[in-house]
Amino acid sequence: MTEADFIAALRRLPLHAGAHGLTDDAAHLGDLVLTKDMTVAGIHFLAGDPPADVAWKLVATNLSDLAAKGAVPVGVMLGYPIGDDVWDHAFLTGLDAVLRAFDCPLLGGDTVKVPPHTPRILSLTALGRSAHAPRRDGAQPGDSLWITGTIGDAGAGLAIAQGAAGPPSLLARYRRPTPRLVEGQALAPHVHAMMDVSDGLLIDAGRMAAASGLAVEIDLACVPLSDDLKAFGHDALTAATAGDDYELLFACEGEPPVAATRIGTFREGDGLDLLDAGNPIPLPDRLGYQH
Amino acid sequence: MTEADFIAALRRLPLHAGAHGLTDDAAHLGDLVLTKDMTVAGIHFLAGDPPADVAWKLVATNLSDLAAKGAVPVGVMLGYPIGDDVWDHAFLTGLDAVLRAFDCPLLGGDTVKVPPHTPRILSLTALGRSAHAPRRDGAQPGDSLWITGTIGDAGAGLAIAQGAAGPPSLLARYRRPTPRLVEGQALAPHVHAMMDVSDGLLIDAGRMAAASGLAVEIDLACVPLSDDLKAFGHDALTAATAGDDYELLFACEGEPPVAATRIGTFREGDGLDLLDAGNPIPLPDRLGYQH
Repeated sequence: MTEADFIAALRRLPLHAGAHGLTDDAAHLGDLVLTKDMTVAGIHFLAGDPPADVAWKLVATNLSDLAAKGAVPVGVMLGYPIGDDVWDHAFLTGLDAVLRAFDCPLLGGDTVKVPPHTPRILSLTALGRSAHAPRRDGAQPGDSLWITGTIGDAGAGLAIAQGAAGPPSLLARYRRPTPRLVEGQALAPHVHAMMDVSDGLLIDAGRMAAASGLAVEIDLACVPLSDDLKAFGHDALTAATAGDDYELLFACEGEPPVAATRIGTFREGDGLDLLDAGNPIPLPDRLGYQH
Repeated sequence: MTEADFIAALRRLPLHAGAHGLTDDAAHLGDLVLTKDMTVAGIHFLAGDPPADVAWKLVATNLSDLAAKGAVPVGVMLGYPIGDDVWDHAFLTGLDAVLRAFDCPLLGGDTVKVPPHTPRILSLTALGRSAHAPRRDGAQPGDSLWITGTIGDAGAGLAIAQGAAGPPSLLARYRRPTPRLVEGQALAPHVHAMMDVSDGLLIDAGRMAAASGLAVEIDLACVPLSDDLKAFGHDALTAATAGDDYELLFACEGEPPVAATRIGTFREGDGLDLLDAGNPIPLPDRLGYQH
């Protein structure tokens, strides 16, 4: 089955109201926000990625889902296949670092043995609390679309992890993303819709527009790129379809309370329209990652 | 690393107070009880087990952890590797059945792709609510040790799943365990300690005694065996070391408020003493499953 077919089938099972029809990245129980991810070697990370970075990224990407809900992290539960000693020790070092960096304690979990030669599959459940958890479906006509930070650095970092020459700063954006927890907490009461960018700016913006029943127009010339990325040679279109950014994408009226870049506008209609410095350009074949 | 070494290392990370030092099967956030398990083909289930039964058992065993806390299920979050269509459809049928059977909705989750030929690894997080969640470490000297239901049926069911001749009732105890939710909710306010039996009656009783800083004495002649199990030919010692029972093991003073069998007594000291109809007998080499 495709992921879409499987999720459609899950929607026919008994669902908790806080599952929001499985249309969002996180579930809710009162003010608790819950998110769960599995990460698979060879699919979500490279088998050669340093284990400490795998631990960092597993926690950071789940905390990024919490950040998009304006949540303060409460704790994480880990599902871990015990493997070789060297990998396990290094993983624990990265886990310690990421939990301390984002002030998020371990709440529990499960360790398992797996058959020999099984690709590593790890699981994490993250819990946070948020009094004002925005959804991705609340954008209004006339809202501006904003993004925190810079886009595309992690995509360049992936190319570097795969052998390209490039600066450690870009590789770090791929291997050790920073969930925008502080920004998410400040933004949550002010935005109409918010989500984190994990699959690519264009595909995720299109999802926010579709969930909100609106069209969105994005001007590529406005997409914020780091100096390192420009020096690396990736253009705005490459950046906007690269994924793994873990920046916050949000719809709001007026100016947001945190540093961010205005990249587009929502209006009545549907679909994604792309501009380059005000001039319409065709959509690329691929808008981002589709799992 | 061994599981014990890995968990010891996890204890040196920042831990949530509700993790109870990672000494229990479940974590707590206020009255919320949380448990997380991974299940692996070839380790926790047989690759040939029917997918609907794998779904049932994954949910039921997590709900059994909630039952031991006297919790009412709130919801589950699933981590699922999308595989072949036939397996996925059958899994969904079993998932639907188990969620309806125990009135537990789906709260969310994550689907992933995995590399070809990866053994199936599934993950589940279950949440429940309990006002009186007993721990496993509260047994008092003089408390009796009790067990719900009958022991060893699932162990015989495993033998049947592996090719032995035997009745469907025993196979069902292995493939479709029933979490003792109603009994757990009734028992929770009355017991000093409670846990579910997953690895074997003797090993789990020994863990309760060790956690409580006490010795426990169990009389094998008192261990409740089903007529089907006796007909199958497994004796009480085989039953008490078989595992996968998902019955509730508890320590209390006086009579419990649900049907259960008194099988032993806690006293000052440490270790597990085994009797057979009042006569001391040696411990077997293997008390149950050790992961």
